[in-house]
Amino acid sequence: MDEHAIVERILGAGRTDGAALRVGPGDDAAVLRVGGDLVVSTDLSVEGRHFRLDWISRREAGRRAMSAALSDLAAMGAEPVAVLLSIAGPTADAIAEAGEGARERAAEFRVPVAGGDVSGGAALTLDVGVLGRVPSADASDEAPGRPPWLRSGARPGDRIWVTGRLGAPAAALRDWGAGREPDAAHRARFVDPEPRLAVAARLARSATVTAAIDLSDGLLRDARRMADASGVAIDLDAAAIPVADGTGWTPAEAASAGEEYELLLAAPDLPPDVRLACAAEGCPITEIGRVVAGRGVTLDGEPAPAAGFDHFAPTEG
Amino acid sequence: MDEHAIVERILGAGRTDGAALRVGPGDDAAVLRVGGDLVVSTDLSVEGRHFRLDWISRREAGRRAMSAALSDLAAMGAEPVAVLLSIAGPTADAIAEAGEGARERAAEFRVPVAGGDVSGGAALTLDVGVLGRVPSADASDEAPGRPPWLRSGARPGDRIWVTGRLGAPAAALRDWGAGREPDAAHRARFVDPEPRLAVAARLARSATVTAAIDLSDGLLRDARRMADASGVAIDLDAAAIPVADGTGWTPAEAASAGEEYELLLAAPDLPPDVRLACAAEGCPITEIGRVVAGRGVTLDGEPAPAAGFDHFAPTEG
Repeated sequence: MDEHAIVERILGAGRTDGAALRVGPGDDAAVLRVGGDLVVSTDLSVEGRHFRLDWISRREAGRRAMSAALSDLAAMGAEPVAVLLSIAGPTADAIAEAGEGARERAAEFRVPVAGGDVSGGAALTLDVGVLGRVPSADASDEAPGRPPWLRSGARPGDRIWVTGRLGAPAAALRDWGAGREPDAAHRARFVDPEPRLAVAARLARSATVTAAIDLSDGLLRDARRMADASGVAIDLDAAAIPVADGTGWTPAEAASAGEEYELLLAAPDLPPDVRLACAAEGCPITEIGRVVAGRGVTLDGEPAPAAGFDHFAPTEG
Repeated sequence: MDEHAIVERILGAGRTDGAALRVGPGDDAAVLRVGGDLVVSTDLSVEGRHFRLDWISRREAGRRAMSAALSDLAAMGAEPVAVLLSIAGPTADAIAEAGEGARERAAEFRVPVAGGDVSGGAALTLDVGVLGRVPSADASDEAPGRPPWLRSGARPGDRIWVTGRLGAPAAALRDWGAGREPDAAHRARFVDPEPRLAVAARLARSATVTAAIDLSDGLLRDARRMADASGVAIDLDAAAIPVADGTGWTPAEAASAGEEYELLLAAPDLPPDVRLACAAEGCPITEIGRVVAGRGVTLDGEPAPAAGFDHFAPTEG
């Protein structure tokens, strides 16, 4: 099942444009103008597809679903305003435990759960809608914000950056798949990926980011999305790709590893003091390539394989 | 499974309040202040729980999920701004057909689909997030709107009104459950309940509505929710309850029938010209009772049973 083709089929063709819809489906989130700009997105997590309950608990599944959804706001340079939380599951306890995990994670980012729905259903299924706004420079609630970061803004001459270190969630999936308990740090990165909201807020204040996307399907695949949306080529340096400790991945393998929820950024430059401050908060930002004229993605000058992480792997891999 | 107890457990206790969240979970939708007031809600539809695919098609399931979600905006007196659409299902075709039905229904109300997500999953599951705003009197996009209709505003002396005629969706469910093909008109009301957005817009312009709720779980159960939220009692007149043609229901039975998506309204009065205009557009508005001091709901002076429609009936009834 090609998830993106289906989304395109549902959202892409013949959609009804509303005056309030300023950026439509296809980026990490849509942008609505309601007074200021509102950034909205939604993210599904389905048992047996995105997680397995013999690997993580229902509460952890809820935490993970919330983290993944909030990551889309970070990728727009937006700050969360509220979330919507829908959960289907086989028992009241299953729904409640997943819901408590999701709510707990939202609270860690000080985001209110504005609404929700629940239903019976055989598989534990969470859908998290996120609403955010792009902060204005003067911190007034009423002033229009600066533009959100889109995928389409990368320009030749920009440099390419990535937050964090790649490969830990994929290492956890590899070990579970082989019947081994994963390394605790790798497992923690799968359960609690960090939506890069704090880094995004810092960058939004102090740097000119031209394009951003969060890495849900692997660096190579998501870099290709940015390149395609921007009408440019992206050249990546394998040796520069930061690989998570103890995973055993080569840089090229880490570049195909999914479920990261790190940010891929294009920017002419990122000031060293901002990078130092982010690194001090536990999130290094690494320069891994550059934007050039052309199309597609290269790794060390060779056309990069289109491979990336498949959301349907946990039960089908 | 007591759906409302679970929602309360997930959303109710210890929630993180945000400055932007003006009305929290518990009403038909939450209200956010982002520039103007934004009204948000989300609604799950799960195969085997809310519908069965031997009764209706996947496209019809998508239409129905969208109608049900938009109804929450009508119940707030809000107009739709955009929707978010997430679908899990067993095949790409299943997801796409349900998505096309949902998108088609949204387009009929001129609402853009601002975002969405899809995933594999054994049961067809749709989650529709809705975003709306309460129009301001001067039709300016930037001016703050009037207050949304909450469940909690009913006051002694108000009269109680209901839109449409009740019992058709429940008649369709009864007939399917008995192995009979339902009457075409009853089936159509189950597949395509009418979100009362046009009526709500007309009432919002011309009348003082003190409280509103949409009838998803049956008139008696939802009237009790309004009474409890408002701290009042609601007395209903059985003979006044409008019953859909050909259903065979008594008024008391129609008052327990769910899946209506009609509006229950409290208002000191509704001007006759507004009621005539709504009736001319196919949506009669009927006075069925009054708000008095006290607690609970009565039907012809007798305490009304707490019975209402159970969302889990389609496979468990």
